[in-house]
Amino acid sequence: MRTITWDYTHQQVKMVDQRLLPGEYQEVSLSSYAQVAEAIQQMVVRGAPAIGASAAFGMVLAAQASTTDDIVEFTNEMNKAAEVLLAARPTAVNLNWAVSRMLQVLEKSEPGSTDDLRAAMLAQAQQIADQDVEINKRMATHGANLMKDNETVIHHCNTGALATVDWGTALGVIRMAHEQGKNPHVLVDETRPRLQGARLTAWELEQYQISYEIITDNAAGFFLSSGKIDRVLVGADRVAGNGDVANKIGTYMLALAARDNQVPFFAVVPTSTVDLTLQEGKLIPIEERDPGEVLGIQFLGERASPAGAKARNPAFDVTPHSLLTGIVTENGVVYPPFETNLRQVVMAGQI
Amino acid sequence: MRTITWDYTHQQVKMVDQRLLPGEYQEVSLSSYAQVAEAIQQMVVRGAPAIGASAAFGMVLAAQASTTDDIVEFTNEMNKAAEVLLAARPTAVNLNWAVSRMLQVLEKSEPGSTDDLRAAMLAQAQQIADQDVEINKRMATHGANLMKDNETVIHHCNTGALATVDWGTALGVIRMAHEQGKNPHVLVDETRPRLQGARLTAWELEQYQISYEIITDNAAGFFLSSGKIDRVLVGADRVAGNGDVANKIGTYMLALAARDNQVPFFAVVPTSTVDLTLQEGKLIPIEERDPGEVLGIQFLGERASPAGAKARNPAFDVTPHSLLTGIVTENGVVYPPFETNLRQVVMAGQI
Repeated sequence: MRTITWDYTHQQVKMVDQRLLPGEYQEVSLSSYAQVAEAIQQMVVRGAPAIGASAAFGMVLAAQASTTDDIVEFTNEMNKAAEVLLAARPTAVNLNWAVSRMLQVLEKSEPGSTDDLRAAMLAQAQQIADQDVEINKRMATHGANLMKDNETVIHHCNTGALATVDWGTALGVIRMAHEQGKNPHVLVDETRPRLQGARLTAWELEQYQISYEIITDNAAGFFLSSGKIDRVLVGADRVAGNGDVANKIGTYMLALAARDNQVPFFAVVPTSTVDLTLQEGKLIPIEERDPGEVLGIQFLGERASPAGAKARNPAFDVTPHSLLTGIVTENGVVYPPFETNLRQVVMAGQI
Repeated sequence: MRTITWDYTHQQVKMVDQRLLPGEYQEVSLSSYAQVAEAIQQMVVRGAPAIGASAAFGMVLAAQASTTDDIVEFTNEMNKAAEVLLAARPTAVNLNWAVSRMLQVLEKSEPGSTDDLRAAMLAQAQQIADQDVEINKRMATHGANLMKDNETVIHHCNTGALATVDWGTALGVIRMAHEQGKNPHVLVDETRPRLQGARLTAWELEQYQISYEIITDNAAGFFLSSGKIDRVLVGADRVAGNGDVANKIGTYMLALAARDNQVPFFAVVPTSTVDLTLQEGKLIPIEERDPGEVLGIQFLGERASPAGAKARNPAFDVTPHSLLTGIVTENGVVYPPFETNLRQVVMAGQI
């Protein structure tokens, strides 16, 4: 299920509108980088790797919209588009990673025409998307190899094909374990406020025919202390150099409950999610989103909160690396000490 | 704001229909014990002390509906009503406590007429309700005395006047601190799945003009690790002899996050919530409610989960006593070792 594709006929990027799931599966076609930035901000597309791939194609759209044949002017326009795309969401580092790779095309290319650059940028974006799928499959295999038959896994947010280009990170591991015949069962955290678990992960699990039950985020601790959970798997939006993990809000408390019950807790992340420029998690910028995402919730058909109520809505939190059992990457599973081992695995990937 | 009252004119118990708040404040009048049991089961009324007082009046309704003047037959009928009421919800011990107190009226009374018993039962129920208010004020004072000016407090579920007869437990503490001029600010956990925080606690705080913001349950860990939270206050549905606390689902993870950030965590409970017959929390029965409470949640006006999705819905979890800073009761604040100190405080209350 490839969720982000380049439409060569219409020169547009196509992606699933994730706001409409599970009720409706609808693809949208975007034809400008501004539309891509808006789609990222509005969470038409979400998930760190998916945002990265989308932004890469956003840069392609910017390149194709540019009419100049002057390389300096073209480069300036690309830098401007990059700024707009980077401002869409601050926490996931993959956005930065992908846009930087797109700009590197301009820096590294031999002097040539702007049309050469346009072609090189499309090739680069396509490579980012294709590599994402390949990387996810490698991660999925590394992660699934850790799993035994009939494991019950708690999963937070959505980290599947919808959060990437295909396969996914943490959900990719579960899917691979399923394909290996290991019969995993998933407790799906609903993931307030935007319910990516109840909406998107549950929907994906239906597609793959993997057994699951939805739980409120509040209930994860209850199940972890029941002795019936074998593993917690999450993705990440940014991993600091020391292994601290910024991920969807609620991950930190989930990790605490896993640790308190000696349940293995793994983050599953491509090395593009690791930000070695940040030494620790508290340096990761945390996006605070519209309070309306919290206040809009309904109970028996009525708005649940009083008129005039205020809310706070941080979208991510930071899980200290001390709570992680390991970090699954495309280059293998990283165990403590994370600071050394993570650097090694990231550098290996860049060879 | 007295939320449960006996209507002497119509011989009915009146209570606020908590399912309709915050949109609508409506009192319902119940005229049979079966209606009271149903109201408890359906969560028209919820909150451990409120359930206790409601059930006491339910027993009065059973007594008044009985037409016999034979004491043995009357007692049998009362035992039958007690069984129905006790089956309404399993976790909160106050239900058991209140119904037991009502049945003790029958055991302790001098031989007399069934009408004497009816009158004695009404007096007992009225006393349970009146004492609840008085006890809550004493708890509120003990708890508020712990608080400094301008504290930011995280609060889970609803523990206010709506969860009791008036004042409340944890929310009573906040209200008392407010009346003492200490200017508390409350981060209100929305409390999925039934949103007692977003609906009921926020509504109560509006009435008392106490400053608050609603957060998703997932966000509590983020704020606790920010260094800006001074205290966490929760109620309880049952406290075991060793101080383990059964409370609304999510409390356990909240307590873990408080402990991880050295933020004081207090449960505020009347001694009627302490169950000395149970040595530890894992012996407390945990109610699992209708999965529809989880699955019914909407996103952008549509049901969030796929058709056919399953869910698990435990309504409570157990927080080990090791995560508690203290337990505020009407007889004072209990600190570790809880096993000894809790017994002392409970026994003191029974003198």
